[in-house]
Amino acid sequence: MRNVRVGIWGFGAMGSGMAKMLLKKKGIEIVGVCDMHPDRVNKSIYDVLGCEKEERREVIIKSDADVVFTDECADVVLLATDSFTKGAFDKIKLILEKKINVISTAEEMAYPKAQEPKLAKKLDEIAKANGVSVLGTGINPGFVLDLLILALSGTCEEVDYIKAARVNDLSPFGTAVMVEQGVGATKEAFKKGVENGSIAGHVGFPESINMITEGIGWNLEKIDQTREPIMSNVYRKSEYAEVQAGNVAGCKQCGYGYVDGVMKIEMEHPQQILPQLEGLSTGDYVSIKGVPNIDLQITPEIPGGIGTIAMCVNSIPHVINAIPGLKTMLDIPVPRAMMGDVRELVLLKESAKA
Amino acid sequence: MRNVRVGIWGFGAMGSGMAKMLLKKKGIEIVGVCDMHPDRVNKSIYDVLGCEKEERREVIIKSDADVVFTDECADVVLLATDSFTKGAFDKIKLILEKKINVISTAEEMAYPKAQEPKLAKKLDEIAKANGVSVLGTGINPGFVLDLLILALSGTCEEVDYIKAARVNDLSPFGTAVMVEQGVGATKEAFKKGVENGSIAGHVGFPESINMITEGIGWNLEKIDQTREPIMSNVYRKSEYAEVQAGNVAGCKQCGYGYVDGVMKIEMEHPQQILPQLEGLSTGDYVSIKGVPNIDLQITPEIPGGIGTIAMCVNSIPHVINAIPGLKTMLDIPVPRAMMGDVRELVLLKESAKA
Repeated sequence: MRNVRVGIWGFGAMGSGMAKMLLKKKGIEIVGVCDMHPDRVNKSIYDVLGCEKEERREVIIKSDADVVFTDECADVVLLATDSFTKGAFDKIKLILEKKINVISTAEEMAYPKAQEPKLAKKLDEIAKANGVSVLGTGINPGFVLDLLILALSGTCEEVDYIKAARVNDLSPFGTAVMVEQGVGATKEAFKKGVENGSIAGHVGFPESINMITEGIGWNLEKIDQTREPIMSNVYRKSEYAEVQAGNVAGCKQCGYGYVDGVMKIEMEHPQQILPQLEGLSTGDYVSIKGVPNIDLQITPEIPGGIGTIAMCVNSIPHVINAIPGLKTMLDIPVPRAMMGDVRELVLLKESAKA
Repeated sequence: MRNVRVGIWGFGAMGSGMAKMLLKKKGIEIVGVCDMHPDRVNKSIYDVLGCEKEERREVIIKSDADVVFTDECADVVLLATDSFTKGAFDKIKLILEKKINVISTAEEMAYPKAQEPKLAKKLDEIAKANGVSVLGTGINPGFVLDLLILALSGTCEEVDYIKAARVNDLSPFGTAVMVEQGVGATKEAFKKGVENGSIAGHVGFPESINMITEGIGWNLEKIDQTREPIMSNVYRKSEYAEVQAGNVAGCKQCGYGYVDGVMKIEMEHPQQILPQLEGLSTGDYVSIKGVPNIDLQITPEIPGGIGTIAMCVNSIPHVINAIPGLKTMLDIPVPRAMMGDVRELVLLKESAKA
C-alpha cells in the first residue's frame, strides 16, 4: 500500500512546522514544496528543516506552483500562505483543478461563507467538479472558539448564551505578528493602526461566530467587533518585541453575535506579550448558559502555533475521505492525533500515481 | 417539507427525558413509543409526561415493538432500554430490519467492538443491508472520557499519555443506580457485590479506551479495571439513598489502557452521592501529556442525565445523514445543540411515508 502523499505550499513557520510533524508520522510522505522566499528556493527541505533526509525521497523547494503540483501528484496540499480567502483563492483553485484536496491555514477559510460567500460558492463548485475537497482549519478559528464550543453544545438540551475567551501569550510569534497586533506601539499609533487597517488584530471572529450559529441553528443578525490596546504598566521585552511601560503590549479584540435582536455570543481574545509580567494567566475559557450550564477551562491555553500545525495535519485523513466540495469543521469527523500508520485512516484512490 | 419522525423504545428516565427535549424542538415529532411498564402501557405520552398534547399527533404507548415500529414509520428510533450490547441486540436488529436508523443509550454500544466484536460486525452488516445506520452514544461513554479527549488530541502533534477523570454526584439517580454502585452498603457487602457482579459500577471504560486508542492509532494490548468502595466519614442522605458514616457512599472505578507494554491511558470515575458533604467538588478533567500538554477542566461535571439525553437527540441528524452501517463517535461530525429547525439539518428520504 502506497504512502499518503502531501504537498506543502508556503514554507514559513506554519508550513515548515507541518513538514516537521509529517516527518515523524508513519505511512505519509512529503512529495513537493512550493515557496517563494529566496532563502529557501532551490534548497532541499531537509537542509531548510535542519534534519537528515535518511531514506526519504528528495524534495527541492520550487517557487512555481505549476511545476511543483502536477495533476494528482499528491493526495492533499497544505496551503500556509494567507489569512484571507481572497488571497488564497487562486492558489486553492489551482490545486483543486489538479484534482488534489486542499487544507488551508487561512483564517477566513475556516468559514469562508462568513466574509466571502461568493468565493465560498465558487470553491465548492470547483472542488465538486474535480472530485476533491477543501477545508480551512487551525487552532482558532478551527477549534478553540468554534469546534470546541460546538462539541460542548452537543451535551446541551438548550443553549441560551455563549461566552468564550482565549487569553494567550504572543511572545513566540515573529515580527509580522507583533506589527499586526500593535505590540510596542504608543496608544495613539495603535488607534491610527486600527483605523487604517495596519493593526488587524485577530482574523476569525466572523468565521467562529458564523460557524457556531449555523452549527446550532441560530439565525445570526449581525456581528460587532472591537479592538482595544492592552496598555502595559511595566516594561516588557520578548525575542521579537519591546514594550515600554505606558505603551501597548497587545490587542484586546472582542466579538459579539446577535440573534433575534439579542446578543447571544460574546468572545474575548486579548493577545499580548508576556502577560505574566502583570500577573495575568493565560487560558482558553468557554461558558455556556443553557440546559445544562457548562464551564470549561484549559490552562494554559492550547498554544497557537503547534495547535494550528496539528489541526491541519490531523485533518488530512478526513479531507481525503470527505465527499467532494467545500468542507468546514461542521462537516467532518473530529480530527484527532495520528499516532499510528496514516494509511489505515484513509481511503486512497487506487488509481492515484504512487 | 415533512417533519423528522422519531420513535422511542424505553420510556424510563432517559426515554421520557428525550421525549421532553424533542417536544421543544422544531421540525421534529414523536411518532411512536414502545414501553412495557404497566404504569405507562396504553397511556398517551402527553399524560405520562404531564404536558399538553396541543396540536401534536396522539401517541399511545404500546408494549409490542412490532406494532409500534412498522417499516419506515420513523426516520430514527431512540433505544433507551439496556446497558449491554447483548441485551440491546435483538431490539436494534428489529428496528434496522424495518429500515429505520437507531440511536442506542446502551453504554457498550458506544463502541461495541470493545466487548462484543461479533455482534458489532453483525449489526454493521444488518444496517448496511437495510440502508440505515446505528450509533451508540451518551455523556459517558460517548463524550467526556472519549470524544472530548479525541477532540483535544486533534490539536496535538504527539500524544504520550492521557489521564482523565469524571468526578460526579450520583444523588439525582434512582434506586437501581444506587444498588449498582453500592451506595449505602457496608464495606463487606460492597466487596461481595463486586465479586458476584451485582455491583457493576460504571459500564464504559473498555468502550472509551478502545475508542481513543483506535481513534489515535495506538495498538491497545490490554485494559485493567478496579472498583473500590468510597467510604463515607459522614452521614449522607439523598432522595434515593442513605449512607451511615463508615459505610459506602459510592464506587471509585479506575481503568488503565496499555499500549506497547506501557500504561498510556488512566481513567478515574468515582461516583458517589453528595460528595460535597466531605468537601469534594465534582468535575470532568482531562490531561494530555504530549506536544503540547493540555489540561482541561469542566466544573462542575456535565450532568449525566441531561448530557446523555442531549447527546442522543443531538445525534439524530448525523445518524440519518450517515452512510449506512454501524457508526461510532469517530465516524460522524460532532453533534451540537439543535436550536433551529431540525429539518434543515437532515437529508430525508423523499420516498419515506409522511
